[in-house]
Amino acid sequence: MASLLTLTTDFGLTDWFAGTLKGVVLARAPDTRIVDISHGIAPGDSRGGAFALAASCAYFPEGTVHLAVVDPGVGGSRAALAVRTKRFLFVGPDNGVLSFALRNETVESARYLRNEELFLTSVSRTFHGRDVFAPVAAYLCGGGEIEKVGPEAREWVRLRWPEPLPAGRGQWRGEVVYVDRYGNAITNLPETLLPEGGENSAAVMALEGGREVPVKAFYGAVERGVPVAVPGSSGLIELAVNAGHAGDSLDLFIGSPVWLRDDST
Amino acid sequence: MASLLTLTTDFGLTDWFAGTLKGVVLARAPDTRIVDISHGIAPGDSRGGAFALAASCAYFPEGTVHLAVVDPGVGGSRAALAVRTKRFLFVGPDNGVLSFALRNETVESARYLRNEELFLTSVSRTFHGRDVFAPVAAYLCGGGEIEKVGPEAREWVRLRWPEPLPAGRGQWRGEVVYVDRYGNAITNLPETLLPEGGENSAAVMALEGGREVPVKAFYGAVERGVPVAVPGSSGLIELAVNAGHAGDSLDLFIGSPVWLRDDST
Amino acid sequence: MASLLTLTTDFGLTDWFAGTLKGVVLARAPDTRIVDISHGIAPGDSRGGAFALAASCAYFPEGTVHLAVVDPGVGGSRAALAVRTKRFLFVGPDNGVLSFALRNETVESARYLRNEELFLTSVSRTFHGRDVFAPVAAYLCGGGEIEKVGPEAREWVRLRWPEPLPAGRGQWRGEVVYVDRYGNAITNLPETLLPEGGENSAAVMALEGGREVPVKAFYGAVERGVPVAVPGSSGLIELAVNAGHAGDSLDLFIGSPVWLRDDST
Repeated sequence: MASLLTLTTDFGLTDWFAGTLKGVVLARAPDTRIVDISHGIAPGDSRGGAFALAASCAYFPEGTVHLAVVDPGVGGSRAALAVRTKRFLFVGPDNGVLSFALRNETVESARYLRNEELFLTSVSRTFHGRDVFAPVAAYLCGGGEIEKVGPEAREWVRLRWPEPLPAGRGQWRGEVVYVDRYGNAITNLPETLLPEGGENSAAVMALEGGREVPVKAFYGAVERGVPVAVPGSSGLIELAVNAGHAGDSLDLFIGSPVWLRDDST
Repeated sequence: MASLLTLTTDFGLTDWFAGTLKGVVLARAPDTRIVDISHGIAPGDSRGGAFALAASCAYFPEGTVHLAVVDPGVGGSRAALAVRTKRFLFVGPDNGVLSFALRNETVESARYLRNEELFLTSVSRTFHGRDVFAPVAAYLCGGGEIEKVGPEAREWVRLRWPEPLPAGRGQWRGEVVYVDRYGNAITNLPETLLPEGGENSAAVMALEGGREVPVKAFYGAVERGVPVAVPGSSGLIELAVNAGHAGDSLDLFIGSPVWLRDDST
Repeated sequence: MASLLTLTTDFGLTDWFAGTLKGVVLARAPDTRIVDISHGIAPGDSRGGAFALAASCAYFPEGTVHLAVVDPGVGGSRAALAVRTKRFLFVGPDNGVLSFALRNETVESARYLRNEELFLTSVSRTFHGRDVFAPVAAYLCGGGEIEKVGPEAREWVRLRWPEPLPAGRGQWRGEVVYVDRYGNAITNLPETLLPEGGENSAAVMALEGGREVPVKAFYGAVERGVPVAVPGSSGLIELAVNAGHAGDSLDLFIGSPVWLRDDST
């Protein structure tokens, strides 16, 4: 079976960067199948890249190589990593972009990318995606051993995941961690915090300024244009507006505080 | 030969949704080759998705599985479909997104997606693209029989296609049905309505407000910046501005009325 | 080994154009592996397409077929080309979009696309990407001989590459040739113009209005928000702002003049 490689980057799709990286991979590991997770991470937003990778990586088959390149420190002193877990291989700069995904994995081996023989002959100091990460990912896709990429990495940068805070009497304080294309504002509150019966309960999400949004099972459980909170596809409660854009309508951004309240208690 | 799967969605390319769907497909049908038709359908615009799918699907090889996920009613009561035609398989929500493509196909079998054994173990109520449509499409790509996905669907939602209206004396009234990236405004008027000799004739397209645009064979048949109507690549007459943006310049939107007039009659 | 085909177009990713082109290729050469270099070239910007193709094509394996479709003259009198070089095959309209890439190649055979038997049965005058270029590229990907696509082309349109101008006493006058997603402004000044020791020298880039930007080795060699000039990934000096957008901050556009000055001389 040909290796599968996913890409999560902030390269965008207007320039030639993602395509060039793929060329390097296919020149070295021609059978590799490449799937884009996203090239639309905001420039330099390693947290956004970490979130996208963590939300999607587990849906790929075991053995997939996940390469994430959101790399504002390229060319400087930040390290670069390859991590083998029980299910996957991860490759990327050591700036936290891999860290949300690694929270859910059993790490078997972590290595720094230091074996320059695996890199392109000429390594720029502005595009390690092409010159360092792509050839190393190709090496791993072609069956190369992670032990060969460089010395053991005993630790790596971990971005802080905002944990929900208990707020007394069955309440939780959370925050928005992502606003997606539809305007749905994903919070850090797992749906497991919902009371038994979840969306049929008296649970509400309270927003700054006092607005309250009912928790329901799906977007269409409220009329068009009406706000609703639902258990989202990543297991996190999200704020939505049926057929609308919650981020715009409810003025929600990454970091906006929210409160989950169970009015039945 | 590996199966070919096309994707037409409103997922966008910034979030991880399209990539995740692909992961699910490749975990279940690893040989599938996946081609994006578009992930840029406007959020919830099942009509736009229907148009894109109908304009492109016939150019793929026989046996291709076409999956369209524009699904504003996800999690609610709308049904989900798989349709086998003489040439292709189609999968998507039963909200009309498949209906323009099906107008051109000979339907052999239509089924509701009800066999939950084919779905992901845990089905969210916000992302059936990942949890329902992708695994069923993978099942079909892997050679699964459509009869296994669920009971027969005797009818499905059909979006209304705006038919051209005769307007007397060789005239037709039509409307804009799509404005593309170049600003070209595609109408519902088939080029077969053009008089013999077509673009060399005295035919003109009249716009609201009285402006008249000559019908020519290709964009460059007029000077740069000048409006022109041409037979477009989908067999429909389109309004363009050579090296410009007709949508902006001529104030044309989906639904804008147009009249085809043959001044020689 | 399956053939590899790259695509560089101005089709965008919202409409169905790129997907349709791929369908045509896969219907005729089913084993072809297709990689997008970019579909985000500005509409009709054959220079931008030429730049993207030249910056990326050499990173693909030998034998890759590079198809570039930025084609504002579609349907008119511009010719269409296939060019075999020592390493690659190139296909596209004869409007210069291939010309920057061809500067770096050893051309073995250049042909006009005139063999209509290779085209789709019905050729529109608005979408040669689908009707002419895709089927010819598929023919070549499937092992077809370039001599069969049409008669020899002895010349082709070459876009002018702005060469750096000597400006006296170790100075060079250049200009911005591209601004990328990060806002980095790529100039036409090759890094080989930098004095020995390059980024550790007293070299500066001077902008219109007198502003001077130091040349360093990588973005992070200056504080966040500070302008810097670095040797970029295409071998050209680029102007950047660490963690910022040089194009916006420094008011740089394609064509903006810059001067490289070595203050040590």
